Amino acid sequence: MPAHAAWPEAQLPIAANVAIRITGASDPRIPAAATRLLNAWQERTGMTFPHRAAGPFAFDNTAAPLTISCDAASSAIPQLGEDESYVLQVSGDGATLKAPTTLGVLRGLATLTQALEGDSRGWYLRATKIEDRPRFRWRGLMIDVCRHWQPIDVIKRNLDGMALVKLNVLHLHLTEDQGFRIETKTVPQLAERGSDGLYFTQEQIREIIAYAAERGIRVVPEFDMPGHATSWVVAFPELASAPGPYVIERRWGVFDPVLDPTNEQTYAMLERFLGEMAALFPDPYLHIGGDENNGKQWNGNSRIQAFIREHGLKDNAGLHAYFNQHIRDILQRHGKRLVGWDEILHPDLPKDSVVHSWRGAEGLAAAAGQGYATILSNGYYIDLCHPAADHYRNDPIPADTKLSAAEQERVLGGEATMWAEWVDPETIDSRIWPRTAAIAERLWSPREVNDVGDMYRRLAIVGRRLEEAGLRHERNRPEMIRRFVGEPAAPEICAAVGVLIDAIEPVKVYARGAQQPEMTQLSPLTGLADCARPESDAARRFRDAVDAVLASGDAHAGQLARTTLTSWRNAGSFIVDHAAKAGPRVSGEAVPVATNLVSVSIVGLQALDTLQARQKATSAWLASAQATLANTAKPSPTATELPMLKAVAKLVDAVR
Amino acid sequence: MPAHAAWPEAQLPIAANVAIRITGASDPRIPAAATRLLNAWQERTGMTFPHRAAGPFAFDNTAAPLTISCDAASSAIPQLGEDESYVLQVSGDGATLKAPTTLGVLRGLATLTQALEGDSRGWYLRATKIEDRPRFRWRGLMIDVCRHWQPIDVIKRNLDGMALVKLNVLHLHLTEDQGFRIETKTVPQLAERGSDGLYFTQEQIREIIAYAAERGIRVVPEFDMPGHATSWVVAFPELASAPGPYVIERRWGVFDPVLDPTNEQTYAMLERFLGEMAALFPDPYLHIGGDENNGKQWNGNSRIQAFIREHGLKDNAGLHAYFNQHIRDILQRHGKRLVGWDEILHPDLPKDSVVHSWRGAEGLAAAAGQGYATILSNGYYIDLCHPAADHYRNDPIPADTKLSAAEQERVLGGEATMWAEWVDPETIDSRIWPRTAAIAERLWSPREVNDVGDMYRRLAIVGRRLEEAGLRHERNRPEMIRRFVGEPAAPEICAAVGVLIDAIEPVKVYARGAQQPEMTQLSPLTGLADCARPESDAARRFRDAVDAVLASGDAHAGQLARTTLTSWRNAGSFIVDHAAKAGPRVSGEAVPVATNLVSVSIVGLQALDTLQARQKATSAWLASAQATLANTAKPSPTATELPMLKAVAKLVDAVR
Repeated sequence: MPAHAAWPEAQLPIAANVAIRITGASDPRIPAAATRLLNAWQERTGMTFPHRAAGPFAFDNTAAPLTISCDAASSAIPQLGEDESYVLQVSGDGATLKAPTTLGVLRGLATLTQALEGDSRGWYLRATKIEDRPRFRWRGLMIDVCRHWQPIDVIKRNLDGMALVKLNVLHLHLTEDQGFRIETKTVPQLAERGSDGLYFTQEQIREIIAYAAERGIRVVPEFDMPGHATSWVVAFPELASAPGPYVIERRWGVFDPVLDPTNEQTYAMLERFLGEMAALFPDPYLHIGGDENNGKQWNGNSRIQAFIREHGLKDNAGLHAYFNQHIRDILQRHGKRLVGWDEILHPDLPKDSVVHSWRGAEGLAAAAGQGYATILSNGYYIDLCHPAADHYRNDPIPADTKLSAAEQERVLGGEATMWAEWVDPETIDSRIWPRTAAIAERLWSPREVNDVGDMYRRLAIVGRRLEEAGLRHERNRPEMIRRFVGEPAAPEICAAVGVLIDAIEPVKVYARGAQQPEMTQLSPLTGLADCARPESDAARRFRDAVDAVLASGDAHAGQLARTTLTSWRNAGSFIVDHAAKAGPRVSGEAVPVATNLVSVSIVGLQALDTLQARQKATSAWLASAQATLANTAKPSPTATELPMLKAVAKLVDAVR
Repeated sequence: MPAHAAWPEAQLPIAANVAIRITGASDPRIPAAATRLLNAWQERTGMTFPHRAAGPFAFDNTAAPLTISCDAASSAIPQLGEDESYVLQVSGDGATLKAPTTLGVLRGLATLTQALEGDSRGWYLRATKIEDRPRFRWRGLMIDVCRHWQPIDVIKRNLDGMALVKLNVLHLHLTEDQGFRIETKTVPQLAERGSDGLYFTQEQIREIIAYAAERGIRVVPEFDMPGHATSWVVAFPELASAPGPYVIERRWGVFDPVLDPTNEQTYAMLERFLGEMAALFPDPYLHIGGDENNGKQWNGNSRIQAFIREHGLKDNAGLHAYFNQHIRDILQRHGKRLVGWDEILHPDLPKDSVVHSWRGAEGLAAAAGQGYATILSNGYYIDLCHPAADHYRNDPIPADTKLSAAEQERVLGGEATMWAEWVDPETIDSRIWPRTAAIAERLWSPREVNDVGDMYRRLAIVGRRLEEAGLRHERNRPEMIRRFVGEPAAPEICAAVGVLIDAIEPVKVYARGAQQPEMTQLSPLTGLADCARPESDAARRFRDAVDAVLASGDAHAGQLARTTLTSWRNAGSFIVDHAAKAGPRVSGEAVPVATNLVSVSIVGLQALDTLQARQKATSAWLASAQATLANTAKPSPTATELPMLKAVAKLVDAVR
């Protein structure tokens, strides 16, 4: 949602002769982005525009309905804090996009990409005057390419999605216990031995940086240290804080291996490595992680404990700060500013560091209060499968903030974090999108833009635009369902399993690891929890309908609730009845969940009947209904849950 | 279908502890392929097998239910004619795959990848003894990456599909009027100026060759000359046979630009270029195209005509043969054998050349009769959107062949050809698969394996396996339909458009160019014809049902025909009735086709009613029905057709 927009009543028709005129500052990114805009419109409309007829980036420079005007080219590699504002005016006669910089043009073109509408009479832009600028300077998406490897095409299509929703920082989490994912020429053993051969070459990194810069997006690398370091010490066990050997970690969790901050060889290796990375990544910010060192190796090493005492470092936190000071010195020599997670905050942390808050708003406030620039990710953990609304409501600086104006200024922005325990290239888009668009709006739009219902309405449209941009959050699901159902994948069984999957959600937070403890990095992600969306639209609409029924007896909402429960009951019954005709996974995994869905739906329907008959339930029925709800709330080995349980419980309560 | 297979009654259960033992010759391709097999099975079953627990390619070498035994490693780069045979035995106790070479092991593993079955009780392999070997040595898929650019991920996933159906030659069509798609270091202008920047780097080519070799697939490059040469002469107009300048061709068809065979500079450039390519591509065969020179530039150039007279070349064909002799000499110096399309056949063509027949069986017979090795592609033009059955019945050496035994021996095999006028990376898989699996079987299995009904039954299963292997022939369609319908893409309208799209087919052969003359290389491929499959399963089943009804009055077939017609009528009516709620393309493109589908379905239903009532139609109704059929058979600007028209006409005829 733009910062300011007016919508006069008019339309600008878009037909096959549409052309763009580009004036002002010369930056090859502008015609390239204009070409992408028109290509996207071509695919949507089926029309062939004249823009590429004479070669790439050939634009009509005489009369054109769309005019782009840019005052000055932005820096070739986007920088934190550059002007991203733009003004877009559309009337019945034409459209003008004006911006002080290239970045503003790119943001305006992202708006235009979304803005083309059509109805049965044709294609058009609605007349508007948009004056737009971001609320926060740092609007990021972190992708963990370590726990599950994510190759370059995943990164590129997600950069396209980021550009569409105006995110401007791609944070690549490049090292982890489970994989060291970047080629290094100075310390080649790191990727060679720590990655199963799955890592970005430096040429690919340059390709990613160029692709991002083309879209006005910075690329900030993270090399997690001193903890989360198993993959580092596979090649260099002598740099760990306990004797090796080490192998790549396949499980999930917090592990012991941590670099030895008392060993000068550690810094010698990091000096070479970080120097090389500082040259490879042009962004002035470099993320060194710093999270979740469990301290076991340091506690268990008497030499390290002696070092702490001898250097007056007090404790492990002091040793971590000592390590960070060394790293900060290395980075400073290479012209980089240090970014790290919450745990780097310590009285000895240099003040030019940036604290990336993952544990809570308190950490953000503490860091800002102590003078550090900060980035918020707590509340934006998209891997935890929370609803978009939760992320949307998570304001880095809420209206009731206690931060001073100066402290607020230090809040650079936020980042959605796509941790990769439970995503592979087939499913990752469905965990990132469309929910991350809600986070993008929180970071771009004014605080006052916070209508959750309207957010969901627009999220469905943005979700379609993201599909058009190449994201696969919806595209892969039908095939995943066919694979799950097995040959011959009868369409009726696939349809019923589709209804089931649309109704359920993966379990939240870190519950999946507990419910599927046998799953490792080497396991397939092709189960019910992987097919399901993080947030069920059907369940959300059902919950809203139940609330409306209970609040006002709304008949339309009652009908929607009844239809939904009926479709769940029928699909669940169909699966149970026909499982013998499908493959093993329907019987083994879908039937127990479908059985629960049937039970819950029947309880819901009976409660609804009773409610609408203005009666109360018998105590026997209530006991049975509550037992059903308790039973179906139990953890499932499929690591899925039924997100309509609370709403059905409300119906049951209402007839008590 | 294997050459020989027996199926005793037993099953080998496959559970989470499945392991593979590899014995015999050492070739890293074998554990790599075994890993791919187990990964594919993991994704299908959801189980985590132990094979990767200790790193890639870690196999249990003691007791294992699956044993692979290989006598000798194949050459690192597959060669024409290498042994590809294998024997696969499965009993209730275990499975053994034996092969004389690596290639045989790879083919056997492709069989095993497909063979894992499941029912509600679990996963298993059926007991079998398969003794298998290919009928033909050259079993190819040609991909045109020029008319529409196809990046490396398209190639890689199609190599995965080829491996699954045991194709062994990837023929890359790398130069065309519309694009020069390979980096050259000796003549860099060719790709720089002839490709819009869309071409394979040599590093990518090496990656493709390695990926193919890993799967036992050869890579044969084609550089089309002297015709189809527009993109060559963009950079080198002086080497064309008429004055330039030239620009990359955007339209489809046969164009005039042809290299000048009388210019020594042409050979100097080709010597450099082909020498470089000969070193890049390890396969001993190199395809030089040679098709469709329309002769206009040669006819119009008096110097060239004088050259023909002076050198006693007789005519343009003689000049073409003169050119080919020069090229053959260049190739011979670089250790390559020349392959070219039909038109290279000429009394002066060196006998070590290979003739690739695209125009007809006569060309194949003529070339084989004159002593040339031959490859068949006529009948395997998958871009023409013919049914799989047509390709399946197209035997390179049919039972009634007139070729002598020696001539038959010269028929190396065949190639499916994916010409790329009407495919982009989103749609190409849907044109290649699953129909190419039918061609693969024709080239692998004995001539006597030719039951079309059984082929279609198995094709549906192979289609699912191809999806699992990463092909997107089905995966992209729902998103294409949502894009076509437009926001908000109401599910009911998408479903109705889906039924419409499942009922129709793109027009055949080259009709689309005539029906959509405005479409060029720069046009989007997102219309009805792009969403539709080349062959409609629904229409095929309907045609079969009509035939059964007319032959025997079969009640079940009658019911299927009625249900199908009813669903078409209902979906078409729904689209017409609700178009105002959808985007412009539904009104503009889908409604006319839906209207026709409704008319045809109603005629079919009425005819079926009359037939089943054992009555005859009135002459007025007959006239109206025939007018409807004639009307709906007319060319549509959507370049789609209704593949059930003839079957409905049969029903109408039956009540005459």
